[in-house]
Amino acid sequence: MICSETNIRIRYSETDKMGYLHHANYLNYFEIGRTEILRNMGMTYKEMEGDGILLPVLSVNIRYNAPSYYDDVLTVKTYMREKPGIKVLFEYEVYNENSDLICTGNSTLVFIDAHSRKPRRPPDYFVKKCSAEFKS
Amino acid sequence: MICSETNIRIRYSETDKMGYLHHANYLNYFEIGRTEILRNMGMTYKEMEGDGILLPVLSVNIRYNAPSYYDDVLTVKTYMREKPGIKVLFEYEVYNENSDLICTGNSTLVFIDAHSRKPRRPPDYFVKKCSAEFKS
Amino acid sequence: MICSETNIRIRYSETDKMGYLHHANYLNYFEIGRTEILRNMGMTYKEMEGDGILLPVLSVNIRYNAPSYYDDVLTVKTYMREKPGIKVLFEYEVYNENSDLICTGNSTLVFIDAHSRKPRRPPDYFVKKCSAEFKS
Amino acid sequence: MICSETNIRIRYSETDKMGYLHHANYLNYFEIGRTEILRNMGMTYKEMEGDGILLPVLSVNIRYNAPSYYDDVLTVKTYMREKPGIKVLFEYEVYNENSDLICTGNSTLVFIDAHSRKPRRPPDYFVKKCSAEFKS
Repeated sequence: MICSETNIRIRYSETDKMGYLHHANYLNYFEIGRTEILRNMGMTYKEMEGDGILLPVLSVNIRYNAPSYYDDVLTVKTYMREKPGIKVLFEYEVYNENSDLICTGNSTLVFIDAHSRKPRRPPDYFVKKCSAEFKS
Repeated sequence: MICSETNIRIRYSETDKMGYLHHANYLNYFEIGRTEILRNMGMTYKEMEGDGILLPVLSVNIRYNAPSYYDDVLTVKTYMREKPGIKVLFEYEVYNENSDLICTGNSTLVFIDAHSRKPRRPPDYFVKKCSAEFKS
Repeated sequence: MICSETNIRIRYSETDKMGYLHHANYLNYFEIGRTEILRNMGMTYKEMEGDGILLPVLSVNIRYNAPSYYDDVLTVKTYMREKPGIKVLFEYEVYNENSDLICTGNSTLVFIDAHSRKPRRPPDYFVKKCSAEFKS
Repeated sequence: MICSETNIRIRYSETDKMGYLHHANYLNYFEIGRTEILRNMGMTYKEMEGDGILLPVLSVNIRYNAPSYYDDVLTVKTYMREKPGIKVLFEYEVYNENSDLICTGNSTLVFIDAHSRKPRRPPDYFVKKCSAEFKS
């Protein structure tokens, strides 16, 4: 299993008139979790894009257990539990400062070529890193 | 079945460096669809909040079939196919200008009291309208 | 003078915990005003980018007179009062449904080449249209 | 002078199709700078709102010198150089990782009562802290 843990302080601009972190922003927090999982693996998504490989999102499923509030520091835990192929599954848990699990989710992304915008195999350094991690 | 159909032009600020409508923004488009479905039913979500009733999101599931781009006019179709109780299920289809179904999704929301933030039954005018629509 | 007038309904996702349209969103509304002024001139910003010409923002000045709220329909009036060169000055007025002037602003943008990212003269069709409009 | 210095990593969701941090997001970064300046002063904006005092924005002026990009870590320096009254002036400098000053700005905010939404004097703890800092 490959994972990352990131702390994110909720911004005023991310709240809504209900006083909650607006629910769509959790998808941006998941994206930060993915960015950090790649950084933990010794690569960056920025470099991957520089190499002509994009990783758009195919699906997201998200469940909200409790709201969160301005200035709270949330902990986003991101997991890659299955060996990825052309598609990659990420799973997420978001905790508040009381360690309540306030949100869970998952998303599937696909490697595509930046020029053709067609699916392609993941870059070698990613495959190599995953093979080391997900040995059978 | 109760439904709404809304056209939304993609804003520059909603694009990302991939050149796509950033995937989290579809959740905001779904929210517009819900706002318009209530307006079609003869009420507004704004008034409902004024009456002390909030409708936060419990879950979202979204599947992206194809990207969309700056200045495209998308059509968001929103459906309430089941008679709602304390929870309401909305379903969504998003089409581009070529009538391609680029995104589908659903979300479940729950009626809560604005003061106690506890679940409560939907407002009478909403129940009445739904009863008329979902006669068995 | 070249101008546009656009109606924008405030989204739930654009509000903040104060219950107001979050102040940063007005910059996105200004951007929509610019998009529409170009469309009124017979071109689109999308096509301009397709021709390899970008128009990034150099400065913004904005003054908020009164707040605005979820579901309000604002009217954004955008003006190009001076004949543009490599830089273009846009001015904005935002009105609410009571015709209160709730926000004013201006921004300066610059034409750049998409490849070199260096300033360049505006496209011919833009110059021609402006010359017709700003005859001395 | 009272100041804060905050590092912010640019999120994918904050980029636009030009590949830049979308210009409206700098206003959100300024807001984070204000949040941190208050925290440095020994209070939080969250508590201030809890005490029934809001601080909406009256005006913003911003100048963009150079673009910034996904995954860059920006440094936001926020300054309160003048002793505040009912209004407070904040000034901002944003630097990239090469220490280039990529953006400058300022904004004026006003203390208001959360209930009446009318201007009011700042809270005592804020006045006291400022008096200690801005001794003539």
